[in-house]
This record gives sequence, structure tokens and C-alpha cells, in this order.
Amino acid sequence: MPTDEEQTQRTSQPTVGWVGLGKMGLPMARRILQAGYPLSAYNRTADRARSLAEQGGRLLASPAEVAAVSGVTFSMIADDAALEAVALGPQGVFQTIAPGSTFVDMSTVSPGISARVAEKAREKSVAYLRAPVSGSTVFAESGRLTILASGPREAFDACAPLLQQLGQKLYHVGPGDEARVLKLLINMMVGTTAVMVAEALTLGEKNGLDWAQMIEIVQQSAVGSPLIGYKAKSLTEKNFPPAFTAAQIAKDCDLALGVGRETNVPLPVTALVRQLYGGMLATGRGPSDFFSVLYLLEEMAGLRPRD
Amino acid sequence: MPTDEEQTQRTSQPTVGWVGLGKMGLPMARRILQAGYPLSAYNRTADRARSLAEQGGRLLASPAEVAAVSGVTFSMIADDAALEAVALGPQGVFQTIAPGSTFVDMSTVSPGISARVAEKAREKSVAYLRAPVSGSTVFAESGRLTILASGPREAFDACAPLLQQLGQKLYHVGPGDEARVLKLLINMMVGTTAVMVAEALTLGEKNGLDWAQMIEIVQQSAVGSPLIGYKAKSLTEKNFPPAFTAAQIAKDCDLALGVGRETNVPLPVTALVRQLYGGMLATGRGPSDFFSVLYLLEEMAGLRPRD
Amino acid sequence: MPTDEEQTQRTSQPTVGWVGLGKMGLPMARRILQAGYPLSAYNRTADRARSLAEQGGRLLASPAEVAAVSGVTFSMIADDAALEAVALGPQGVFQTIAPGSTFVDMSTVSPGISARVAEKAREKSVAYLRAPVSGSTVFAESGRLTILASGPREAFDACAPLLQQLGQKLYHVGPGDEARVLKLLINMMVGTTAVMVAEALTLGEKNGLDWAQMIEIVQQSAVGSPLIGYKAKSLTEKNFPPAFTAAQIAKDCDLALGVGRETNVPLPVTALVRQLYGGMLATGRGPSDFFSVLYLLEEMAGLRPRD
Amino acid sequence: MPTDEEQTQRTSQPTVGWVGLGKMGLPMARRILQAGYPLSAYNRTADRARSLAEQGGRLLASPAEVAAVSGVTFSMIADDAALEAVALGPQGVFQTIAPGSTFVDMSTVSPGISARVAEKAREKSVAYLRAPVSGSTVFAESGRLTILASGPREAFDACAPLLQQLGQKLYHVGPGDEARVLKLLINMMVGTTAVMVAEALTLGEKNGLDWAQMIEIVQQSAVGSPLIGYKAKSLTEKNFPPAFTAAQIAKDCDLALGVGRETNVPLPVTALVRQLYGGMLATGRGPSDFFSVLYLLEEMAGLRPRD
Repeated sequence: MPTDEEQTQRTSQPTVGWVGLGKMGLPMARRILQAGYPLSAYNRTADRARSLAEQGGRLLASPAEVAAVSGVTFSMIADDAALEAVALGPQGVFQTIAPGSTFVDMSTVSPGISARVAEKAREKSVAYLRAPVSGSTVFAESGRLTILASGPREAFDACAPLLQQLGQKLYHVGPGDEARVLKLLINMMVGTTAVMVAEALTLGEKNGLDWAQMIEIVQQSAVGSPLIGYKAKSLTEKNFPPAFTAAQIAKDCDLALGVGRETNVPLPVTALVRQLYGGMLATGRGPSDFFSVLYLLEEMAGLRPRD
Repeated sequence: MPTDEEQTQRTSQPTVGWVGLGKMGLPMARRILQAGYPLSAYNRTADRARSLAEQGGRLLASPAEVAAVSGVTFSMIADDAALEAVALGPQGVFQTIAPGSTFVDMSTVSPGISARVAEKAREKSVAYLRAPVSGSTVFAESGRLTILASGPREAFDACAPLLQQLGQKLYHVGPGDEARVLKLLINMMVGTTAVMVAEALTLGEKNGLDWAQMIEIVQQSAVGSPLIGYKAKSLTEKNFPPAFTAAQIAKDCDLALGVGRETNVPLPVTALVRQLYGGMLATGRGPSDFFSVLYLLEEMAGLRPRD
Repeated sequence: MPTDEEQTQRTSQPTVGWVGLGKMGLPMARRILQAGYPLSAYNRTADRARSLAEQGGRLLASPAEVAAVSGVTFSMIADDAALEAVALGPQGVFQTIAPGSTFVDMSTVSPGISARVAEKAREKSVAYLRAPVSGSTVFAESGRLTILASGPREAFDACAPLLQQLGQKLYHVGPGDEARVLKLLINMMVGTTAVMVAEALTLGEKNGLDWAQMIEIVQQSAVGSPLIGYKAKSLTEKNFPPAFTAAQIAKDCDLALGVGRETNVPLPVTALVRQLYGGMLATGRGPSDFFSVLYLLEEMAGLRPRD
Repeated sequence: MPTDEEQTQRTSQPTVGWVGLGKMGLPMARRILQAGYPLSAYNRTADRARSLAEQGGRLLASPAEVAAVSGVTFSMIADDAALEAVALGPQGVFQTIAPGSTFVDMSTVSPGISARVAEKAREKSVAYLRAPVSGSTVFAESGRLTILASGPREAFDACAPLLQQLGQKLYHVGPGDEARVLKLLINMMVGTTAVMVAEALTLGEKNGLDWAQMIEIVQQSAVGSPLIGYKAKSLTEKNFPPAFTAAQIAKDCDLALGVGRETNVPLPVTALVRQLYGGMLATGRGPSDFFSVLYLLEEMAGLRPRD
């Protein structure tokens, strides 16, 4: 709850625009609104936007309309194609965004599409921040995302109070597309971690280890990352409510492998891991949580008939 | 520092035997001695044993001699061949060990050789504990190892006070060779983690990310396991004093893959990771710390001339 | 040497257009010309086109100019981007090509770009044949290429006499983009074969087998494909004049993996093979013949200091 | 049909012994017998030996009994353990074999066990030929196996007339265990070929290519090895009568990977291929023909419910 003084200070800030109210975007936009910033928003499907309107957000008809009235415009969308449409399309942000204002894309997209947005931003004298985030929906709701940002330092500093509404771990990692690469290399490790754990647990399972105790010990071990901790309950119960899907991690691995391809960095393990997620997509399990790659490994080991 | 009462209690315990005074075994044996237990020991090369003698340990000429005078005999050796010699060989523990006493092997070896030791133990009415440990030399010195034990529950309970001198995290995971498999599946994840990190950091490096900041952020991220934390300084400085070598992790991957082979569990990522460590061994870097697999990935990416 | 009658018959055919006079395109166009067909041609760099002019070919200033005067227009270019420019660009074939005429692309490109060309062809009522070829320059010169064609059957039949100038093995494999996929799946096997051979020979080499005899025996064995036969001399002499480069096979693997990604077909071995070629590209060996991946494996095995 | 003179010459040869009358060994032994050589034989299960007796072979009760009466003793058995028993066991060949005679093992086993046999042969002044073969049962019956032999040159020359009854392609590849390694490196390529083909055909299948035509074209292509030719009919009909099983190729890959491990040769593709065969073994398909790994790839691609 901001004090009156903070409130005044904030409303003296340029209004905030938000494009993309999906599973991540909606709770993020809501936090900005709750912090007292005036907020205009757009979502492709109006339904999701409605709840934001009830909390005082202003719904507009296109990214272009949002950018026209905002000093800082955020986007949080699904992939390269969506960023292209939202930023560069005929109803996109760059049709209307004012010189001197700021565009902050928080999506996980390729450095390639991001570089094209950067070029357009330069043309239009707009400050462009890449600010992809780590953390699931729960973290988005509680403002505990990790934010990896790159782009002009001054724009980053100016936006820091806004970004801190979304996440306390806030890093500025370079003047250009560095944040894109950093996000992807973390996510490729996220993808490898799930397969690494799936192989190990399957080996233990087939050799008669106690399932729950094994997971407990793995979690307590040197390889027990926070990610494994978050997933320990799901693994123990073999029940994976989809937080981050196999299709999403496959997409992120593809983006990382694409960076590897374009900059000539061999990534043999990631390449193999990607094909295993491909095995999930091919068998209709793209929408499942990516940690259910455990089932794939169990199938390969003859421990489970295929779904 | 034990109280007098504890001291009394302990000295009423059967004397302790220790076979294998290597980088891990010596500090472990020393802790047992310092806790007030009478200790007889044997090491293949006498040099390493000498310092133990100065602290009150009694040096004997063979594993058989050690076992002859000990109620609980420990071994901490390098590999399957060493366990075979030390336990089953003509000067080995099972030549002399008394019925009703306990043999505790703390090495990382295959379930196969362990099963042969188990058979011999059954024949001789000896309680056989498998108690492989996780943790490096530093952890061995400070008694903070993780101990994964399996074998007869009563023997485990009886040995718990001794084992607690070596590590606070102490688990009993089953009546047979479960601890062997569990240790190996954790170590195969240890091996995969280093390659996973090496791929990711190499990708970031070639794309111009700030090296130190990237490592800091990876460490703070969801994949930032304790292992990555321990190695953060080494990675940042690209200086890897050999704690756990490439040759050792390759051996442990081989053991894990061997369990996978014998119990039909496909481990595609581990198999690939093993071959990358093979690339270190083939180029004379078996004795290097396993995290220096980073150099191999940098070489593959054209970032570093080969050593 | 055609008979007079054949000559008459052929000159009654619509004139032939040819776009792309690279290492493959030039000898192919020359064969068409030598068979008596009037030929107009375009190449991005005029130098290569000159020799064709000396043999009676007519050089024009753009793909559009070529298509404007040709009943059948061929293209043989490097990659997706080149096909996009040559077919769909502002100076491209589809700016001028007449309804009822035929466009035959013989390049190795993705089904994706090919589908876009197909759409344009439908719009313009142009018959569109995809006709990628297998075989190196030597095969192009002697008219012994293998041609995998797909697209409208009637257009294929009408073009068969022309295509037979280029290759005797001529297949019609479907009405749409089937030839694209078939070409890519063969080339991904070509890429895997080289790595498969490199692993095997390196294993033999390090174990003291006679190099030349080993290659002879492999060539005579059940796995001794024609490809291995073509390469036996190069392998024996460890001298690989670049016929098909590492960069080209990496590109084709990428296209095949792209098809796998879009149609959900896991290709774990191909994915790994691609990363090994990536190791060649990253170390400046993209322009080397792809069979020199042998050197990479020898380096990994410690048999050869890095180039 | 040998001439009388040949017959005389042969019967003046020392009698031949044969140990191991399995799918390969029986037709091989039968060819020796039919060529007019007196033959004593042993098989673990007597049933298989009976048919040989009807053709004039003499059945004995152990490898030791066979070796006692033979100038040249052959063995053709399943694996390392069988060779150890048959050669070095208490009823084994080396219990009775005479100094100056020859022992020829034609099995596919590791260089490790072979080296132990070699040592024993040296002790006993026996000439020891390693002569593993390539080719299936059909080739064994018709005497068209490929024989890769190593060991003493004089023994090889002396045995050549016998070996030529079994295969025309007969190579002497070194004085020691070279033939073991060569056989394994060929077989690892055999294993990789099947997976390579399975990936490619699955990609084509899911993209709508005509199944039979695709296989025909692959067979005619540069990668169309004899092995693919032998398997074309099976692939086309998706019907794989077990000639060489998944379990056997997995074993041979393990032996090859073992040589790679002991001599430090990274074999990343072979290692991955092995794990895919592991997926067959784990799902009860070890006894299936190894080319039915196609089914596994089809399952991974969602083209086939699991068996």
C-alpha cells in the first residue's frame, strides 16, 4: 500500500501501457496497477482483460492505442511471431509510440526478432529494454520474479521502480540483447535439469529405491537446485500440474539452439535434451508440465505403458 | 570434545578398523580417532598412514590384520578392484573378520562387486553396511559429509554414532545395495550438471555476456544448485584446483551406466555426458577437476586453443 | 550428340531458363545447352556466366528477365534466402513468368520456403516442380545426378527429357513438397554416415589397426555404402578436397531437424551429429569437406593436435 | 565337392574340433564336415549337435575332450563369459590342447577376454587365432561369411583352407587382437546404420512419403549400403524376422564402447545409439531383430502405439 507521497510521485510518472495479459502478463500488470500506476492495456482476447478493468485498468483496442497514451509500454507475449505482431505489425506499438518514451519487452524471444525491434526503436528514438523474466505464475503474483534486463542503462534506471514491483532480483546485464541470451541459457539448463532428474530417478526406481526418500535425498544433495525443490512434491506424487509446459521448454531450447547455431557454439547435451522433449510433443504431451518428461524416461525403461 | 561419560561409553565399544587412507579416507579416519575411538589402520602406501600414527592410531600390515582386531572395520578405497583386493583378497578383511562384527565400505563402487562382498559377509555372519559418501575433502575434514547407507538396519543403528562423526546427513536407504545405486545416480547428476553449466556458460561467453555477472546470476537462478555454488569461484576465475577429477566422474558415470545396462534403464544424456568426459581423458586431462570440462566446451566452440 | 530429328523436336520446345550458375548449376546448365536446348541464364556474379555465353547461352540481367523468355525456368541456388530472392523477390522469377509455364527448383531448401513458392505458383497458374538432386560436381558434369522430383505429374512428365540430361536416376515422389523432405532425410543420413565412419576409424586407429587395410575392409563390409566407397581414397590419404562442405551438411541437417521440429519427429542421433559439425564450423572448418569431421574425432581422441 | 586328391590332402590334416553349435556355429561346422574334414564337436545342449552326428561328426562331452583329439580347435560362442568357460574353464579347451596345435575363436568378444586367452595360449605353446566373422546365418550356410583374422601369420596361413570353407572374404589384420577391435568397430557401424535409417524413414513417413518408394530410393542412394539392401524387404513390409537381435547389437555396442573406454576414444554417437537399443531391451524387445528399432523411433514420433 503506497503512502500518499509515493502515490503523488508515481502519478507524476508517465502512464504505463501493458500488452499481453496471459498467465504471466495478467498478474504482472495487476501488480503495476495495484502499486498506483495508471495503466492502459490490451489483450488479444478481451476476456482476460476484463478483470483488470474492474481493478481500474483502461482497456484499449490495439497495441498501437496503448503505446499512444503510455510513457512506458510493456509487452509480455508468447513468442517471436507475437512480438513481431505486437511491436512491428500494422496495429503495433511502433505505429504510435512517441520518441523519448520506453518500450520494455519481458517475453522470452530470440535475439533475432529482438534485434529487429531494436532497429525500429533506434529509428523512432525509443528506448528499448529487453527484460525477460524467470519464475512461474506464483512468482508473478507475488512480485518475486527474477528480471534479466538489457538495453540502455538510463532507461533501465528510470524503469527500475516499475520493475521492482514485479521482481526483487533485478539485473542489468548489458546494453544490447544480452538479456535474451542469458534468459535462454538459463532456460536450456532448466530443460536439461528435468531430463537429468528423470534419468536418475528412473534408474533408482527400477533398482528398487524408495521413491519418496530418494527424491528427498536428491533434493538435499549437491545437485538439489531450487528448481528440484519446487518440483519435489510433484515428483513424489507423480502429479504434474502444468506450470511450464513441455511445448514451452522445447521452444526455449529451440531458441537457445538457434543462438548456438548462429554464433557457432556446439551444444550437444541441449540438442539431445530437445529431442527428448520432442518425444513428448510427438505423443500429444506438449501441454503437460515439462517435468513429466519423467514419464517418457519411465516408458523408455519399460516401467510404464505409454499414456 | 566428548565428555568423560561419552568417552567411557565409546571405549566400551569394539575397536575400529580403517582400511584406505587416501584424500578422503585419511581425514575421515582422523575424525574417528579424535572422537576417542581406538583405531587400527592400514594403507597400501605407509607414508600417508604415518600422520595417523602420530595422533594415536595403530598401523597394521594388511586389511586382514586390521579386521582381526576390530569390531567395526571401515574401508574407503578407489574402485571395484581395490574393494575386491581389500575385502576378498588373500590379505583381505574377510580372511580374519569375526562373526558378529561389522564391515562398512564407504567407497563408491558398483552394485556388482558390492553384491559379491555381501555374499561373503553372509557366509561369515558379518553385518555388511554399504555407506558411500557425498562431499569433497573439505567436507570430510569437517565431518559434514552426506552418508547414504544400506544394509542391515540394526548394524546401521549400532554404527550411527560412528557415522555421525563423519557426516550429519545420514540416511538408511534399504536393506541391500540400495545405497550403491543412490550414490551413483546422484553422481551421474553431478557429472551432467558440470556439462550443462559448461554448455550454457560457453553460449553466453561467445555472445558477449559479462562472465562474472553471468555466473552470479546462474548461481542465483532456479538451476543454481549447491554444487554450482561451490564451483562459482572456480568458474569465475577459470581456475579449477582438482577436487573431484574428470577421471573420477567418468568412472562413476561408467558405474551408473553399468547399472543402467544390467537393469535395462536407458540413460541417453548420461551416456553422452560420459563421452564428453572421455574427451578430457583422451587429451590428458583425466587428473583435472571435472568442472574444467568447461575448457572442452570452449574448445569445441572455438573460444580456446586446445591445452 | 542428338540426331537432327531430335534437334528439331527439341528446338520446338519452349526455351529453357536457368538461374544460378554455381559449382552445381553451371555444369548442369551446360549440359542442357549441349543437348541443343536454347538457354537463357542469370547468375548473381557475372563471371561464372561468361563461359556459358561462349557456348551459346544468352545472359540476362535478372531472374525476372530469364523467366520472361522461358517456357521452363530452372533454379539451382544455395539456400532458402536465395530461393526467396530468386523466386519471390522484386527481380524474381514470379514477377514475369507466364501462366502455363513451368518453374523447376533443383536446390536443397526447406519445405517451408518451398510451400511459399508453391502458393505463389498456384496464384500465377504456373506448374512448380521441386527437383532437388543428389550427387557432387563430378556427377553434375557427367549427367549422373539422382533427381528426386515432386509436384504436378504432367509437368514432371513434360520436363522428363530435360531432367534426363542431368541424371538418369529420376524419381517422381509425390504431388507436393515430398521431394524436399526426401532429399533432406537422405542428406541427414549422409551427415550421420561421415560421423559414424569417423568414430569407427578413430577407434581402430587408436587401437593400432592398419589404416589403409581397415578402410578397405570397412568399404567391403555390409556398411560399405557407395558414399564410403567414394570417400575411401580421401580417408586413406587423410586428404579431403572439399566436395561437399561441413557448412553445407550442417545446413542440411538444420533443415531436416527443422522438418522434424515442425512435424514432431524426434531425431536424437541427427541432432547430436549436427552439433559435431557445429564443432567444425566453430573452429573455422566450415569450408572443409564434411568427411574431415574425422579430424574432429581424432582430436577428441587425443590423436591429433587441433588444426 | 573336393577331388580325391584334395580329399587325401585334407584327411592328412589334423582333425578339426568345433565348440559351439548355435545359429552360426552349426552351419559353419557342417561346412567343414562336408568339405571332408574329420570333425569332433561339442555343444552345451546336445539337441543341436545331433544333426551334425547324423552327417558324420563325432560328438564329445566337453571342450576339453574336443581339443584333446583335434589339431585345430574352433569355437563359436555367444559372449565373453562363454569364451571364458569354453577356453579357460575346468572342462575347457586349454585343459587338454596339445602344444603346437591351433585354437581359432570366431566369436565376437572383447579384446579383454581375448587377451587372457592369448596369455594362456602362449603358456601352452598353442597358436591362437582370433577370427570373428561378419554375416548372418544365410551367409554362414553358404560359406560367404567375411572373416577378420588376427594372430600368428603362419597359423593363419595354415588354417586358410579351412577358413575358406566358411568365407571367401578372408583378411589377416595383425598379429594380436586387431581382429577383435575391427569386428567391433564394424558392428558399431551396423548398429548406428539401423538407427540412422529408422530416424530418416520415420521423418519421411510422418511427412507423407510413399513408404515403399522411399525405401527403394534410399537403397539406391549414396548411403544405400549392402546392409540396407539386405533389409529393404523387411523394412518395406515392416516385418523383421530376427536375424541379428537387438540384444546382440547392444552387446556389441557395449564391447565397442568398452574398447573406447579403455583406450580413451570418445564415441558420442555410438553411446547414444546404444541407449536407444537399451530402450528396446527395457521394453521386452531384446530378442527382436535390431532393425525393428524402427518401431521405437515410430513410437517416439507418435506414429505407433507401443507394442
